[in-house]
Amino acid sequence: MESKDHHVVIVGGGFGGIRAAQYLKHAPVRVTLIDRRNFHLFQPLLYQVATGGLSPANIAAPLRAVLKHHANTRVLLGEVVGVDVTKKEVILKDGRVPYDTLILAAGSRHHYFGKDQWEELAPGLKTVEDATEIRRRVLLAFEQAERENDLEKRKALMTFVIVGGGPTGVELAGALSEIARLTMRRNFRNIDPGSANIILLEGAERILPPFPPELSAQAQKGLEKLGVNVRTRCSVTDLKPGEVIVKQNEKVETIPARTVMWAAGVAASPLGKALAQATGCELDKGGRIVTAPDLTVPGHPNIFVIGDLAHFKHGLERPLPGVAPVAMQQGRYVADLIQARLRGKSLPPFKYRDKGSMATIGRSFGVVDLGWLRFTGFFAWLTWLFVHLMYLVRFENRVLVFFQWAWNYITRGRSARLITETWEEARQQK
Amino acid sequence: MESKDHHVVIVGGGFGGIRAAQYLKHAPVRVTLIDRRNFHLFQPLLYQVATGGLSPANIAAPLRAVLKHHANTRVLLGEVVGVDVTKKEVILKDGRVPYDTLILAAGSRHHYFGKDQWEELAPGLKTVEDATEIRRRVLLAFEQAERENDLEKRKALMTFVIVGGGPTGVELAGALSEIARLTMRRNFRNIDPGSANIILLEGAERILPPFPPELSAQAQKGLEKLGVNVRTRCSVTDLKPGEVIVKQNEKVETIPARTVMWAAGVAASPLGKALAQATGCELDKGGRIVTAPDLTVPGHPNIFVIGDLAHFKHGLERPLPGVAPVAMQQGRYVADLIQARLRGKSLPPFKYRDKGSMATIGRSFGVVDLGWLRFTGFFAWLTWLFVHLMYLVRFENRVLVFFQWAWNYITRGRSARLITETWEEARQQK
Repeated sequence: MESKDHHVVIVGGGFGGIRAAQYLKHAPVRVTLIDRRNFHLFQPLLYQVATGGLSPANIAAPLRAVLKHHANTRVLLGEVVGVDVTKKEVILKDGRVPYDTLILAAGSRHHYFGKDQWEELAPGLKTVEDATEIRRRVLLAFEQAERENDLEKRKALMTFVIVGGGPTGVELAGALSEIARLTMRRNFRNIDPGSANIILLEGAERILPPFPPELSAQAQKGLEKLGVNVRTRCSVTDLKPGEVIVKQNEKVETIPARTVMWAAGVAASPLGKALAQATGCELDKGGRIVTAPDLTVPGHPNIFVIGDLAHFKHGLERPLPGVAPVAMQQGRYVADLIQARLRGKSLPPFKYRDKGSMATIGRSFGVVDLGWLRFTGFFAWLTWLFVHLMYLVRFENRVLVFFQWAWNYITRGRSARLITETWEEARQQK
Repeated sequence: MESKDHHVVIVGGGFGGIRAAQYLKHAPVRVTLIDRRNFHLFQPLLYQVATGGLSPANIAAPLRAVLKHHANTRVLLGEVVGVDVTKKEVILKDGRVPYDTLILAAGSRHHYFGKDQWEELAPGLKTVEDATEIRRRVLLAFEQAERENDLEKRKALMTFVIVGGGPTGVELAGALSEIARLTMRRNFRNIDPGSANIILLEGAERILPPFPPELSAQAQKGLEKLGVNVRTRCSVTDLKPGEVIVKQNEKVETIPARTVMWAAGVAASPLGKALAQATGCELDKGGRIVTAPDLTVPGHPNIFVIGDLAHFKHGLERPLPGVAPVAMQQGRYVADLIQARLRGKSLPPFKYRDKGSMATIGRSFGVVDLGWLRFTGFFAWLTWLFVHLMYLVRFENRVLVFFQWAWNYITRGRSARLITETWEEARQQK
């Protein structure tokens, strides 16, 4: 590789892409970061936007602001639809960008196991728009219940089903229970929001499957204390407007519920498929690109894949999970490797250092698994708070989130409880 | 009036409606507050949401949270479309609510002087959705300019026209200039955002027409220092996509501009017209209901009209303006009068105590007119800050807004710079 004017193109401004750009700040390369959104989003806290505890901007950082002191980096708002590996160009919806080295960090999206029509009925939680849509549906359900006199209908309005018992589902269920039991208290005159039925469905035999069994059990106990109805070995067989059809122990059952949220499957960005077509590289079942030990696409040493889009398994029992720490470490590794190569050197294969996982359940209970240490309860919750604050990209957001958490904790309030619409809808109403 | 079970229905949770509900807290009446939104919005700061300085939730307060300790009050999410004065019922889109006393506080909306098709081209600034739409358009214009190589097109992308030189227009122009010159500095590689052309159009002979002429002149000087192009006696004759056609001194001119914002005319809520049809009461040109000295609809002593929907002129040169202090004082007056009547008494006619007006221009300049005292500059700006913080409904919002103002002032940043879409649009993109 020649160093002068070497052009690195990063596709995606999530945890992986941002980290790669940050570690290339002083490298003798030009960097172009392309994202279809103008901000980096801290997805692990998205469920708090969906439940009115935080505002979208509190967990977002404008990409241009984050990278403004990177003299070698430009940000491009654009949608990448493919890669031309022969010409070494990234194909945008409206143009092309040439690259010398390409880092694909396009992330993942929800996956409805082939039932795409379910998305309308059960929004997932990946984007700011997903979060405000869930917030709208949840708040509107309580409003409609307050005005509904038919008891059956009212019950369906006050039943909230969350599909998927991973960290997102567990955290969403805990936050919903808090809203209903604490925040909404005394807010209504005809309904008791505390009587809302929050159901968490998990197909596997326990929630938080990647955690050790005893932590899963503790988390389930924690949720049940909050009144959440946890149902394991229970899978969704169909969704209809106002109804969730589930199967548990071979028994099929219909749950009348007006609000359903999806926290189950994820699939890689469609860019994985586009790259496979261009390079003939291998995809896993989830559409992720199977990478070489140095995170390159086999046969294409100048194309890296990181984060949720990468399937990395070398020497591991299972491929690395699609979580922020994996993406961040991969972003840094790739940035380091590019710089090593420019100096005519190389690096040993990528190695993930697992620092542990954690989840929070409601307002003062958490589970933490550091591998060498496992703990649950209040201190685990504090650890969760601290780590999440630390990883927010901007100092301003740390202060804003901290203040709102403290405020919400003390007052049990959640002030970002806005039912908003699209501009077009709002105009129609006038 | 009998006191037991006397039912007061308030339509609208703006400054007037909220204040009326608050002063009825301990009255021997049942209160129902109906709004089509679930939150009270502090509209005077909406321009800061439109320019990415604050999040919508920072200037909104959930109505149920504000009124949760009012044991006699319930909140109803619903859209009022008319009044049945014979049956004494408020007509909702989906139902009816009987009243003994009715307070109409439905506010106003934008008015395009009969050219409703202009709204699509030039959003106003009345709702949260308006603000996030303007934010989206402004930020997107800079993004597109960064990618545009045609210099003419780039110039049109970096031209921002604000129609209307009242407080909203002036404050929006100042904030836009700040974003372009300070916040966006070093954010782009191909454009200099500081070269953006921000044009403020005012049809009258000076901006801030309700202020004394010397303050208008100071405000204009302040805006010009910020690089805003202020054009008075200049009116819009037509709007087309990408073009604003104006007339100034009999000269017609076309300004190529991709982003146009509307801060000109307001018209009362259509509920005014509906009430006029039901009662035969008089409407002014702006669709406002001409009220009796006690804010009732003439001939209907149990129907009050307050805030932007009311035309109140008794003994005044001009009718009272559509500003928050007028609505708040009227809300309180009506609440007091209802209670006086329940005790078999009455009150002297409503009298507005004008405490003054103020506006802010950019990051450290304001104009304040207290009637007996007028001042401009840094101290006027501080006064503006203080008064606006004071009138935010919730303490939490005061702290959040204060912190973000301080932060933005010091860093010149604005972190709520998100380009968001509708949920449907975001889904299509995946």
